[in-house]
Amino acid sequence: MLVYLNGEYIEAEQARITPFDRGFLLGDGLFETLRAYDGLPFALERHLDRLFDGAHLLWTTELLSRDALAGCVRELLFRNDLASARIRITVTRGPEGGSPTVFVTAVPLDLTQLERIHREGASAMTVAGLRCSAGAIESIKTTSRAATVYASTLAEERGADEALLLNEKGEIAEGSRSNLFAVFGDVLTTPAVTMGALPGVTRIIVMELAREAGILVKEGPITPQHLASAEEAFITGSVVEIVPLASFDGKTVGGGAPGRITSLLSERYAARVTLEISRLKRESF
Amino acid sequence: MLVYLNGEYIEAEQARITPFDRGFLLGDGLFETLRAYDGLPFALERHLDRLFDGAHLLWTTELLSRDALAGCVRELLFRNDLASARIRITVTRGPEGGSPTVFVTAVPLDLTQLERIHREGASAMTVAGLRCSAGAIESIKTTSRAATVYASTLAEERGADEALLLNEKGEIAEGSRSNLFAVFGDVLTTPAVTMGALPGVTRIIVMELAREAGILVKEGPITPQHLASAEEAFITGSVVEIVPLASFDGKTVGGGAPGRITSLLSERYAARVTLEISRLKRESF
Repeated sequence: MLVYLNGEYIEAEQARITPFDRGFLLGDGLFETLRAYDGLPFALERHLDRLFDGAHLLWTTELLSRDALAGCVRELLFRNDLASARIRITVTRGPEGGSPTVFVTAVPLDLTQLERIHREGASAMTVAGLRCSAGAIESIKTTSRAATVYASTLAEERGADEALLLNEKGEIAEGSRSNLFAVFGDVLTTPAVTMGALPGVTRIIVMELAREAGILVKEGPITPQHLASAEEAFITGSVVEIVPLASFDGKTVGGGAPGRITSLLSERYAARVTLEISRLKRESF
Repeated sequence: MLVYLNGEYIEAEQARITPFDRGFLLGDGLFETLRAYDGLPFALERHLDRLFDGAHLLWTTELLSRDALAGCVRELLFRNDLASARIRITVTRGPEGGSPTVFVTAVPLDLTQLERIHREGASAMTVAGLRCSAGAIESIKTTSRAATVYASTLAEERGADEALLLNEKGEIAEGSRSNLFAVFGDVLTTPAVTMGALPGVTRIIVMELAREAGILVKEGPITPQHLASAEEAFITGSVVEIVPLASFDGKTVGGGAPGRITSLLSERYAARVTLEISRLKRESF
């Protein structure tokens, strides 16, 4: 499998960086994870928007251009002959006084595992003390992920698929690798970025799709007590798309089966993907 | 200059790691920064205590042994023929499914710059929204430092030497690379770890030295308003030791000159260093 590293396409096993890279020493980096369908990256522009927003906030140095980075992603998918793939773009400040490090990987996606979690729904556990609301840096997708990695480990140890991070007010901010949505009455609610949620690309697309379908969308607090009374809930991420939340902390959510709005949005999301990938295919001819 | 990387002493320019290292991808690592005097590391045992505490919390994998790691530090100082040095021990989880990465550097210390800041005192600026109190992971010295790196950058842009991080309650948790102490009446106060302070090794030693000198020590909240009324204040770190805080947010602290307790503790700290380094010298013969 090839990877892209600082201008070159090389075998993954041969990729090397200096341990003086500030990404390695200080988590001084940014990343994006996205999905390719049929060999083409979905929502790449939105991911690059977020990446460059973060870079402008954190660093004064110039990265390589947006177009160059988009080109790397497409080229890597092509060279690795991938259809369904998980792409990760990692950009760090590089070594002190040096240029940023750009590292892109694309690996085949295990669709069987994804199908299982879509069918059965995800189980989650809440974890306190790892997320702050209104954090100036928490809305940026940095490589400083020790807190979410720790939350994921705790969830794994308890056999849960995902950790839901509580902020200091006891509200659920987001999942360790996903955003949370819950339906109360006919209103689709998701925690606001000011409550400690990362502005997920899938989160934004789902909000758009819900509004297009005439569903009321609200950004507001969801406490665990609140979530236990939701008609339905789901988590979103660029790779997993929309996954029904079957239970959390041992409590069943909704009926435990995918709810009506979850199913509706999953279909609309699939249609949105098909539409964009078709457009990309036409453009690439 | 040689560095230690995964069992080898190699030239710094030749050191290489894989970008699949979880330290690089996710800030899934720990580090310690300490100082060597006369070629010997000060408070190494305490730094290793904190490092191994963090490793036990975050990871199930075994690191190399404490003794081996201590040996690396001493050997590196010797091979690089260093007297006054800044040492950094970085340990990450390594690549997925692989062994932890251990990287140790030791570089000469610029004593002139340190002397200047000890004489003139440091200026600081407060930064909100980057630190949470009672964070389960914030008391561990992980390589996920994006928030403190960002705070340092903001301080640098404003010409301040250090950023003081406010927690969500508006209390000062710590500096971006230091702990804060302030004197109110005859009481030496430092923010508690539960307020978002990292349990600094120098912080603990200073608290011990103060108690030995009969000074009342309290772990409690310090707001910016509170700090403005302090008789004196200082920041501590393993490399900078004890630095008078001359001003913050444009306000002079105390008289702007090093206070009585700051000077007393600086002398006692220097004596403690001399004592420990002499002991290490005797033991190494």
